[in-house]
Amino acid sequence: MTASQFDGQGRLRHLLTLDGMPRAMIERLLDRAEAMRAAGVRGARDVLAGRTVVNLFFEPSTRTRTSFDLAAQRLGADVINFDIASSSTSKGESLIDTLHTLEAMHTDAFVVRHKENGTAALLARHARSAAAIVNAGDGNHAHPTQGLLDALTIRRRRPDFGALRVVICGDILHSRVARSDIHALRTLGVGELRVCGPANLLPSTDTLPGCSLFGDFEAALVDADVVIMLRLQKERMSHVHVPSEQAYFARYGLDARRLHLARPDCLVMHPGPLNREVEIASGIADGAQSLILEQVENGVFLRMAVLAELLEGR
Amino acid sequence: MTASQFDGQGRLRHLLTLDGMPRAMIERLLDRAEAMRAAGVRGARDVLAGRTVVNLFFEPSTRTRTSFDLAAQRLGADVINFDIASSSTSKGESLIDTLHTLEAMHTDAFVVRHKENGTAALLARHARSAAAIVNAGDGNHAHPTQGLLDALTIRRRRPDFGALRVVICGDILHSRVARSDIHALRTLGVGELRVCGPANLLPSTDTLPGCSLFGDFEAALVDADVVIMLRLQKERMSHVHVPSEQAYFARYGLDARRLHLARPDCLVMHPGPLNREVEIASGIADGAQSLILEQVENGVFLRMAVLAELLEGR
Amino acid sequence: MTASQFDGQGRLRHLLTLDGMPRAMIERLLDRAEAMRAAGVRGARDVLAGRTVVNLFFEPSTRTRTSFDLAAQRLGADVINFDIASSSTSKGESLIDTLHTLEAMHTDAFVVRHKENGTAALLARHARSAAAIVNAGDGNHAHPTQGLLDALTIRRRRPDFGALRVVICGDILHSRVARSDIHALRTLGVGELRVCGPANLLPSTDTLPGCSLFGDFEAALVDADVVIMLRLQKERMSHVHVPSEQAYFARYGLDARRLHLARPDCLVMHPGPLNREVEIASGIADGAQSLILEQVENGVFLRMAVLAELLEGR
Repeated sequence: MTASQFDGQGRLRHLLTLDGMPRAMIERLLDRAEAMRAAGVRGARDVLAGRTVVNLFFEPSTRTRTSFDLAAQRLGADVINFDIASSSTSKGESLIDTLHTLEAMHTDAFVVRHKENGTAALLARHARSAAAIVNAGDGNHAHPTQGLLDALTIRRRRPDFGALRVVICGDILHSRVARSDIHALRTLGVGELRVCGPANLLPSTDTLPGCSLFGDFEAALVDADVVIMLRLQKERMSHVHVPSEQAYFARYGLDARRLHLARPDCLVMHPGPLNREVEIASGIADGAQSLILEQVENGVFLRMAVLAELLEGR
Repeated sequence: MTASQFDGQGRLRHLLTLDGMPRAMIERLLDRAEAMRAAGVRGARDVLAGRTVVNLFFEPSTRTRTSFDLAAQRLGADVINFDIASSSTSKGESLIDTLHTLEAMHTDAFVVRHKENGTAALLARHARSAAAIVNAGDGNHAHPTQGLLDALTIRRRRPDFGALRVVICGDILHSRVARSDIHALRTLGVGELRVCGPANLLPSTDTLPGCSLFGDFEAALVDADVVIMLRLQKERMSHVHVPSEQAYFARYGLDARRLHLARPDCLVMHPGPLNREVEIASGIADGAQSLILEQVENGVFLRMAVLAELLEGR
Repeated sequence: MTASQFDGQGRLRHLLTLDGMPRAMIERLLDRAEAMRAAGVRGARDVLAGRTVVNLFFEPSTRTRTSFDLAAQRLGADVINFDIASSSTSKGESLIDTLHTLEAMHTDAFVVRHKENGTAALLARHARSAAAIVNAGDGNHAHPTQGLLDALTIRRRRPDFGALRVVICGDILHSRVARSDIHALRTLGVGELRVCGPANLLPSTDTLPGCSLFGDFEAALVDADVVIMLRLQKERMSHVHVPSEQAYFARYGLDARRLHLARPDCLVMHPGPLNREVEIASGIADGAQSLILEQVENGVFLRMAVLAELLEGR
């Protein structure tokens, strides 16, 4: 499943996972995203002029696909939105052949989302050209740009990671967002990382080194600086037992009463799309402590930074 | 259902409806469309360079969506065609959350089509950024760019609105085109406005002030200067009785014999797409008096004018 | 089915078929594709700046649609990808009315794929503007850009067409690729053209003048310089008998043993997408003699050349 995402000089060649990514590279990407943000949405039109970015989305997505599409356009790149339903994969062409075909057209980057773990790494191993593969979410494995944009969003408000107590709550077992957040935050030296969810939605302890596990959300929230609520991924939960949305909210939903257990200035985050009143109360999602829309905003700048880092100068 | 489409200085903030729009604003938009037309399709590439227009179409559409897409591209804007079927709305995200998410990505305008009346106004009320909402058709309520492009098409041929007798014929009850045409034409001071259709497809008189209602198409056509035929919206007619397409054409179809009842230079219009031999005979649709394709042509320039008016200088 | 693809001065007006296209025009297009290739993917951004290319695909396609999309974008054109499923053709608008509507929006070229023979020619006959129609595949009739890119790919390696023995193998009867390849190669003076396939997938001899027909693939391969394998078009074969994919491969699949019957430097081509181990062994498709990805690469440059030739200076 692993493929090297660095070239011989230690430069980023693909972006597949944050697992094992050096702190310096993560900070470099966050810094570059800050620079993109400072330059504004119209400040980097020439960076990738004439380059081609292909969005290869095998799962439906609003925000991630649009975010990458905008990031690429705002860097001046040509964008191909590869419509899977109307594509030759319906004629049985393999994913690898599709990759090679699109590479032969002199494309520069592939932004890939797929329900199978390891799809982006698979494509990275088989890529024949200089094209970069960007993992936009594979199964429950990784969603590195989400991890980076979450780290960026926290850093803009609480730059001293060592002093932070961060809670991630929800369906950890099926969440690529949780995995990538954990990798980013641990590498950036977060003081304490608490992972919380129903027992059957938590992985075993040894797969989450450096995290403390909580079954009780209220215990996890005590004195938290940041709480990241995960989406209840109904479509990935066919085999596990969640009694009902109401019962889930009663135990793991973030509402005003629970938020008071955290520090008074605790930041509230969620990768979206929201299930209101399932994992988060509407008043909290839209409240003063919520950074949910800042995450979205930062996402475009972060993806501009990633695409520029991968493609510029190649 | 109403939301203000003007800002404090009386400038256009959104385009939701022509109901209540001042004559000066309508004329300003038509004049600007004329200027766009004079400059040509390649004459305004820099007006919206680096701005982002999102097409949010919840109903299928050929001409309107493509017309807005071209208008935005020809102004130099980046365009996101938000594919509803493959979007997170299938994961249950609300329309308002989708709006806020896309706004957070620094988008500048949303072109919205939806089967529910008031959707564009709903989004305008909930918009948090400076983004403009453009109604591209909501239910049977309004289709303001169609009303404007129809007014533009008439004005280019018959600039003296006060001297005109205009007939609108068809399924008035379910037609957002009819409503927006009526609002534009009355505000521009059309001499006489005749609205015609089967009794069960006509609204009550009091909802159409300033219009005279006709059940008999031939009576309505006498001495007409312009006749606007509406598409028989089969998909919106589940509850009402239209005996058959042939029976409809026999009473309300525009053919050569009937067109002779109007003035010899009577202009023929239709918003498209055509149901040939249902509401209009092919020979008339393609004939010398037909402006149907001029409507399409003017539509792109009119939409360029609307987008420029809404976004320029913001 | 025929419509003139040349204007009064012998310039290319549309690209519908290679049947009857003069050698000088074919060579002109190949030369122009070479020039595009030499200039690189970023070397022609201004050629069609501000022009509009519409992709009208009524059949699913990966490579052809993306290839045209990239070609148009790399020439600086605006591109409309007309999504048939979400279009007004679902409301019953005719293809011709759709053409006229899009023409009225000042579009410059239509790239058309349709399952019915003659669709591109039909549109060319009905076009009212200066817009060019490019046939991107109609039924089993023609796929002229594939024929041209195949000729280009061969010419780059074996410029002396008169000395070449070329084999085309597969479902000739249903293959628009075979037809366009044959037209291109015969016009360019290929020394010998062998057409091979199961008896029920071969047309009658008189429809393939200048070709020799083979039922025995191994006999056809002897001393071949180029072998073009066709995709087994399962979706077009409802009426004919192919016993099984294994049985097909056993008789008509290209594997290493069979390739040894050809000349040692025989070139292997396939229009894609591949059915591996059905018409071609994986080792051959990916082997040193395979030009399959070069075909894809040349396709973008060839389509840039075609669009530039059709639109430039109009």
